[in-house]
Amino acid sequence: MSETELRASPIAPTVDYSADGVQHGFLRLPYSRDDSAWGSVMIPITVIKNGEGPTALLTGGNHGDEYEGPIALFDLARTLKAEEISGRVIIVPAMNYPAFVAATRTSPIDKGNLNRSFPGRPDGTVTQKIADYFQRELLPLADVVLDFHSGGKTLDFLPFCAAHIVPDKVLEARAFSLVQAFSAPYSMKMLEIDAVGMYDTAAEEMGKVFVTTELGGGGTATARSAGIAKRGVRNMLREAGIIEGEPEISETRWLDMPDGDCFAFAEGDGLIEPMVDLGETVLKGQVVARIYPLGRTGVAPSDVRARMDGMLCARHFPGLVKAGDCVAVFAVSV
Amino acid sequence: MSETELRASPIAPTVDYSADGVQHGFLRLPYSRDDSAWGSVMIPITVIKNGEGPTALLTGGNHGDEYEGPIALFDLARTLKAEEISGRVIIVPAMNYPAFVAATRTSPIDKGNLNRSFPGRPDGTVTQKIADYFQRELLPLADVVLDFHSGGKTLDFLPFCAAHIVPDKVLEARAFSLVQAFSAPYSMKMLEIDAVGMYDTAAEEMGKVFVTTELGGGGTATARSAGIAKRGVRNMLREAGIIEGEPEISETRWLDMPDGDCFAFAEGDGLIEPMVDLGETVLKGQVVARIYPLGRTGVAPSDVRARMDGMLCARHFPGLVKAGDCVAVFAVSV
Amino acid sequence: MSETELRASPIAPTVDYSADGVQHGFLRLPYSRDDSAWGSVMIPITVIKNGEGPTALLTGGNHGDEYEGPIALFDLARTLKAEEISGRVIIVPAMNYPAFVAATRTSPIDKGNLNRSFPGRPDGTVTQKIADYFQRELLPLADVVLDFHSGGKTLDFLPFCAAHIVPDKVLEARAFSLVQAFSAPYSMKMLEIDAVGMYDTAAEEMGKVFVTTELGGGGTATARSAGIAKRGVRNMLREAGIIEGEPEISETRWLDMPDGDCFAFAEGDGLIEPMVDLGETVLKGQVVARIYPLGRTGVAPSDVRARMDGMLCARHFPGLVKAGDCVAVFAVSV
Amino acid sequence: MSETELRASPIAPTVDYSADGVQHGFLRLPYSRDDSAWGSVMIPITVIKNGEGPTALLTGGNHGDEYEGPIALFDLARTLKAEEISGRVIIVPAMNYPAFVAATRTSPIDKGNLNRSFPGRPDGTVTQKIADYFQRELLPLADVVLDFHSGGKTLDFLPFCAAHIVPDKVLEARAFSLVQAFSAPYSMKMLEIDAVGMYDTAAEEMGKVFVTTELGGGGTATARSAGIAKRGVRNMLREAGIIEGEPEISETRWLDMPDGDCFAFAEGDGLIEPMVDLGETVLKGQVVARIYPLGRTGVAPSDVRARMDGMLCARHFPGLVKAGDCVAVFAVSV
Amino acid sequence: MSETELRASPIAPTVDYSADGVQHGFLRLPYSRDDSAWGSVMIPITVIKNGEGPTALLTGGNHGDEYEGPIALFDLARTLKAEEISGRVIIVPAMNYPAFVAATRTSPIDKGNLNRSFPGRPDGTVTQKIADYFQRELLPLADVVLDFHSGGKTLDFLPFCAAHIVPDKVLEARAFSLVQAFSAPYSMKMLEIDAVGMYDTAAEEMGKVFVTTELGGGGTATARSAGIAKRGVRNMLREAGIIEGEPEISETRWLDMPDGDCFAFAEGDGLIEPMVDLGETVLKGQVVARIYPLGRTGVAPSDVRARMDGMLCARHFPGLVKAGDCVAVFAVSV
Amino acid sequence: MSETELRASPIAPTVDYSADGVQHGFLRLPYSRDDSAWGSVMIPITVIKNGEGPTALLTGGNHGDEYEGPIALFDLARTLKAEEISGRVIIVPAMNYPAFVAATRTSPIDKGNLNRSFPGRPDGTVTQKIADYFQRELLPLADVVLDFHSGGKTLDFLPFCAAHIVPDKVLEARAFSLVQAFSAPYSMKMLEIDAVGMYDTAAEEMGKVFVTTELGGGGTATARSAGIAKRGVRNMLREAGIIEGEPEISETRWLDMPDGDCFAFAEGDGLIEPMVDLGETVLKGQVVARIYPLGRTGVAPSDVRARMDGMLCARHFPGLVKAGDCVAVFAVSV
Repeated sequence: MSETELRASPIAPTVDYSADGVQHGFLRLPYSRDDSAWGSVMIPITVIKNGEGPTALLTGGNHGDEYEGPIALFDLARTLKAEEISGRVIIVPAMNYPAFVAATRTSPIDKGNLNRSFPGRPDGTVTQKIADYFQRELLPLADVVLDFHSGGKTLDFLPFCAAHIVPDKVLEARAFSLVQAFSAPYSMKMLEIDAVGMYDTAAEEMGKVFVTTELGGGGTATARSAGIAKRGVRNMLREAGIIEGEPEISETRWLDMPDGDCFAFAEGDGLIEPMVDLGETVLKGQVVARIYPLGRTGVAPSDVRARMDGMLCARHFPGLVKAGDCVAVFAVSV
Repeated sequence: MSETELRASPIAPTVDYSADGVQHGFLRLPYSRDDSAWGSVMIPITVIKNGEGPTALLTGGNHGDEYEGPIALFDLARTLKAEEISGRVIIVPAMNYPAFVAATRTSPIDKGNLNRSFPGRPDGTVTQKIADYFQRELLPLADVVLDFHSGGKTLDFLPFCAAHIVPDKVLEARAFSLVQAFSAPYSMKMLEIDAVGMYDTAAEEMGKVFVTTELGGGGTATARSAGIAKRGVRNMLREAGIIEGEPEISETRWLDMPDGDCFAFAEGDGLIEPMVDLGETVLKGQVVARIYPLGRTGVAPSDVRARMDGMLCARHFPGLVKAGDCVAVFAVSV
Repeated sequence: MSETELRASPIAPTVDYSADGVQHGFLRLPYSRDDSAWGSVMIPITVIKNGEGPTALLTGGNHGDEYEGPIALFDLARTLKAEEISGRVIIVPAMNYPAFVAATRTSPIDKGNLNRSFPGRPDGTVTQKIADYFQRELLPLADVVLDFHSGGKTLDFLPFCAAHIVPDKVLEARAFSLVQAFSAPYSMKMLEIDAVGMYDTAAEEMGKVFVTTELGGGGTATARSAGIAKRGVRNMLREAGIIEGEPEISETRWLDMPDGDCFAFAEGDGLIEPMVDLGETVLKGQVVARIYPLGRTGVAPSDVRARMDGMLCARHFPGLVKAGDCVAVFAVSV
Repeated sequence: MSETELRASPIAPTVDYSADGVQHGFLRLPYSRDDSAWGSVMIPITVIKNGEGPTALLTGGNHGDEYEGPIALFDLARTLKAEEISGRVIIVPAMNYPAFVAATRTSPIDKGNLNRSFPGRPDGTVTQKIADYFQRELLPLADVVLDFHSGGKTLDFLPFCAAHIVPDKVLEARAFSLVQAFSAPYSMKMLEIDAVGMYDTAAEEMGKVFVTTELGGGGTATARSAGIAKRGVRNMLREAGIIEGEPEISETRWLDMPDGDCFAFAEGDGLIEPMVDLGETVLKGQVVARIYPLGRTGVAPSDVRARMDGMLCARHFPGLVKAGDCVAVFAVSV
Repeated sequence: MSETELRASPIAPTVDYSADGVQHGFLRLPYSRDDSAWGSVMIPITVIKNGEGPTALLTGGNHGDEYEGPIALFDLARTLKAEEISGRVIIVPAMNYPAFVAATRTSPIDKGNLNRSFPGRPDGTVTQKIADYFQRELLPLADVVLDFHSGGKTLDFLPFCAAHIVPDKVLEARAFSLVQAFSAPYSMKMLEIDAVGMYDTAAEEMGKVFVTTELGGGGTATARSAGIAKRGVRNMLREAGIIEGEPEISETRWLDMPDGDCFAFAEGDGLIEPMVDLGETVLKGQVVARIYPLGRTGVAPSDVRARMDGMLCARHFPGLVKAGDCVAVFAVSV
Repeated sequence: MSETELRASPIAPTVDYSADGVQHGFLRLPYSRDDSAWGSVMIPITVIKNGEGPTALLTGGNHGDEYEGPIALFDLARTLKAEEISGRVIIVPAMNYPAFVAATRTSPIDKGNLNRSFPGRPDGTVTQKIADYFQRELLPLADVVLDFHSGGKTLDFLPFCAAHIVPDKVLEARAFSLVQAFSAPYSMKMLEIDAVGMYDTAAEEMGKVFVTTELGGGGTATARSAGIAKRGVRNMLREAGIIEGEPEISETRWLDMPDGDCFAFAEGDGLIEPMVDLGETVLKGQVVARIYPLGRTGVAPSDVRARMDGMLCARHFPGLVKAGDCVAVFAVSV
């Protein structure tokens, strides 16, 4: 079915995107189920509008177990005043709301990974319906899009803001200027190898300036990581001309993930002993983690080695590891 | 039934505690269940013995989601040679083995919290049978007991080694000398208010020198925290005279948790924004965390405040919090 | 794939739709699964035929937790004699049989809501295969279709029989004459806003006279509500000319659900205190329910208000409510 | 262990039972678990005190799926003013709070049926700890105890208030005067055959005046049933001299359940067709329900018959029934 | 609490043990739970009595996944006529009825292994209540007890009938004469090492003649194994003088399990390749199974070796094995 | 989307199909999930190549609870030397690896039945991605394909090797010559009625010589059945010219399943008593099994009868049966 034939989204917003002022409401998504025949998913949304100007679409909780974004956006939604801005700010602190409430990466309803569900379907699963609403209703309203991520319960990242290498170099330059303004401790240029189904791709293909982050992980946030997020989003809105004034810039270190050699994988299950911490550098061939089989003592652990020189920018978080898990990711300074 | 009437433990070790040399084996605990009528739980154990001398009993995985102890002990079990020691080292890297394999605090078999199950029962649940075996078979063999803990998946701690204030001051002094030798970044004097069912109490009541740790948390370990554990256990064995030589001492900071005011609890569910990080100091009444209700934007968060001046030494780890969760623990320097 | 290309349904009936007499059998749907590699779903079916005449297709258990229909149809299947009728009666008391056995609205196998699964797929999930069989095999045999519904475990309805406003006014008139004959305490004219995937729509688009009911709810039935169903179905067969004689008419009250304002939704989770009961009338703005947060006393409940004048014709049933649940539905007399 | 040797309850109240005024707080019960190592169960409690006078202990949610009590008590806790009373009112609207939040009869934590867990244990399961706290801390404070019940998700009752036949006839008379004052549509004299572990028994054995109710069921409440509860509890407090003024009496009908013949049980699984509704009378031997096997049509249902003459005062609620379920309960007028 | 103080069993039989004739009924065990507040477990029972004579108590389904016993006993209960016997036969084909319905070794309600739950408790779990009823009500009625076992889903046995070596040699001789009469292909003399909690022990300690079987396994039965059970039970009743006539004897081979060396255990998880089949003989040290780790090819399997010369009389059944599982059991001919 | 438009498979092999020698590696399938954001499924694979010659693709674990194939292929992968062969052998002992680890027929991830998932999808579920990789990457490399099956946990088969009647008679003849060489006790000619989605069909439609087996069942293997598999696969490689030498032929008995009458189904739930064992012959109308309802004694079982003369070649395995289960399959000798 071509897009023009798609039925309307079943999602009904309780806010008016064209009204000035601050509105707190919901995206109501009807969801009939065994424990509520006429139930709905209620995704919180805030719209702040003041006259003319660009629209920023700010999202957290694309994955439900990542917390810096939701913290910064619940805070921003409550504290940003209409008179502080020129244009419009649309805030959805918990995009995949069922996953956010369940504290899981994917939706407990349909196991949907929202960031692999674009462009979505109006007659699909709950996660696909959310993707479709962003695809057809919210992204078209936006000029600038910021989607917060962190490592979630199973990964941990150096804190960075990032944008993609894209064919449209004007778009790319505007995105990197927003990354610079965000002013996280690290900044990343990303070349996405497999971008199918991502929100990022959906936004970029529509010509939107798209910025994302990875700001820690482990399914927690700290005062420091939450502070980076809170300062970064206001900085970005300043750079976009929506909040007046200059971004509060601090030093950032630019990184690059050049190719597939930056990933190291586990080939067996076990107890992981990390040998390198985030931000430390390694040489190619260095042992970066050891994996002990769980069931007996006295057995040598298997070594996981770096396949390139670089800085550890992401790592497997849980104490146990399974065959096939990504154990470490390395980046190079640029 | 008095202790003398207790039936024998059903656990059969495959190692001989009185034999010299290095033995890797199992504590085999018969466990009949739907998916194995004649199955067993196999708890890995290593015994290293060389002539006469004191016995150290070293344990990790008392709670199954704490990793610095198992890492240090799987490593030690594999690398410590009989000729390096005088006396005996008994190593059980994963005491509550079913919990360790499941990566959970408590046993998936019976929900047993091993550290609240002492003295255990030979005819009880699997967790109670493990406690009973330590109570009646392993603790009596020991002179010195080190039980590794960390915060697990839901708490995060400053890294410290600790011992309890106990009535027997000779015992207490020996324990604190081992804590000093362990040489973690922090050291803690603990006055346990409710010690019913703890392994600690079982050991101390038998007159054993008992030392424990909290070395991080979140259900992960880092190269740094695993390093503290690996160095600490060898230091402690040196101080105990089992490994020759002096402990490699580095600076430690002594802390104390004076009373119940050191704990701050959540009164509602929500998204937690930490306002203070581990190791930072606060004043009484200061907001240490804010809790946002999940279901709508534009609502003020509730504040959690410190009830004493102090340093944040432990915190709630997951990004979401439930009413009744301990959010923060403060300690004072001594 | 166009319909002509569809593979045959995998469902094999053990009854012969063209044979005279009473046959009790099964729709056998092969369903390979972990606990039965060569298993099947066996959906009970009764076919009663006597010479020439119209065919009625009578169904219950479209949602598995609604009971008046299955009670009336198990009773009818056992007691209706071939010689009582002219034509044919096809009875499937539990359309979504896996849901019926599980006492759930949707199928425990695939979470399929049968009434949103039409036209179905012969190579789809179990629920889609059932929909496809009705779409391509049973509906084409029918002249008149009665599909019993009630509120299920999570809604409660005033007892009514209903038909839809449809473009074909001859069809509509025939449907409403059957509703009148059914003679429930209430009768409803329904204008379905979102009819995608419904059995109703599938039948009506095929030009079948389609009648449905809502006869109570809460996942139970009473002697009274079961009696309405048992009498109603025989009345309808009389009106359709399949059973001889006149319907036993009693008074019915005609209702209408005019637009979206008839629904009231919860915006938060909590304990619901209903302020109005089924059949009572309210004025626009009146508080119809109050919702107490569960976690603390002393907090004011939030009010749910009627958005129109009307009679309460359906309500949320369980004692607890979730944000997004439909709390109340109002209708107007016509 | 004798009661005097029992360790103190681990439950810490955040309210002061001896302070005048209105306090809303919690019973905090430490509960260490996989998803919160230092978590707690927080049971809401309200204490309202004004000078001298008797103490009423008012409870709902003893079973977690019964709603009239919690509605009346959340309402009362919020609206009753200290100056309205003489003495003290202690309100726990959801005794078995984990069950109440889960909307289940028993606790999801330990499957504990609180009303079969008395006197409880301070070192037992969560449910046993709650029972112990009522046994040793709250019941001793009370003169009058009202414990609200309804049928829960699986039973439905005529609305009645009740007290037990007890050996102490003075106590019994005072209880029945409170039942009369409660003024439910029906009132019941109950002779408990197996009262082991009940809260009722614990209270009565301490010499407390104990009153209970059954006010509907099915896991729901109506405006009518909630109204009975709200009016009844204030009436009872008036009769007890805690609230000034006379109870608002309306007519009640006294019933009695004479012996075991008042119960009728199912001997097979199936779909239940009720033949009698609550409040209707039957003769011994009359068919009160029929049970259809689920798996095939054309089979005769099995009959369930009354074993005495009487009025249907309680019934099985769900549409499906299992062998051994109580299908119907009959009472006689007195 | 001493036995004389025990409260009465809550189980109510619907049969009269003292009445002549054939009665089919239930042991009704009240079991309140979330899905049936006033529900019961209904354990089928048949009592066949004819005048004076000994009583045989015949049971199957002690473990719920063993089928030869239930098949033989459902068959016997339906076909044995009162006039065929002298005395009484009490038949409970599915002792642990909840486990039998769930097709699991232990009860799905409480994970109770009935054969480790004796003497049970009248106020314990469902499984403990069943044990208590047999202990205090049924065993005292019996002279001869036959309890059918097979290997269940996780073990497979050579088909044998067995009795224990017991101190009372008269009792032992009577038991072995019944074993001989049962006439299974194999017969076993068993010296139980750990008999705590077994039904066998409970019966023998009461001075009852106790006989048991192992008749196959894998959670299935064959025409052959069911035939052995059906013939064996009638043979045993003949030998006991309850059915007239001589047992139909066929050849049996007597076996003995001398000591703990007859068991071989797995030390790791994996895919098991059996190297020996039931009934085959091995020499000490012979490889009887090989275990392949699941996660990679090219790795040598670990060998499991026999620790004695003997015949394979039982084996691990499932294709995968876990560390600690009993892999093989060997017996010697006597 | 046409096949040429399909995106590349996300599966990355760690082996080089074109390299000579023996390689043990993995098919790495990225699988992001709640417990591993950047996790993978790691399917073990072995490639053995020596110069020119045909390629055999050997698979087990298409259904995860069938064991003869995995045993034979883990053994072959470890023991077959490159110098023994001419050509190439690709071995995947556990195609549906997640199902194999879970010991279930279908994948625990997506409930996918791999053998009904062809041709698969590169952007589908995990099971569909596996199917797609075999469809587009592995099958095109093969000349000869052997896919091992057994009955799994719920069926039991006479041990046979089989090939299909296919339109291309040259292909069919080559397949049957391989079946003959495999030399199982039985050999089967199969006419697949519904072959949609099968691996068999995918291979045959590509013109590959396809051979399969059924070698027992019940979720176990025996020394005998594993031996048949191990000998059979080497025999087949000899016949295909990949291993030098002649197959070790032993006698086989050819069977045929002529039409739908070879299947007998259960119409009700219950305890199954088999009346015939595998390999025994029956006459049409003979009772082959009896089904006892579980809930009461004294009721006649329902009979399942053969619908043709023949030999029992497959049977329902578990002791309990559900309505719709295939109870027995009969074949005729050819």
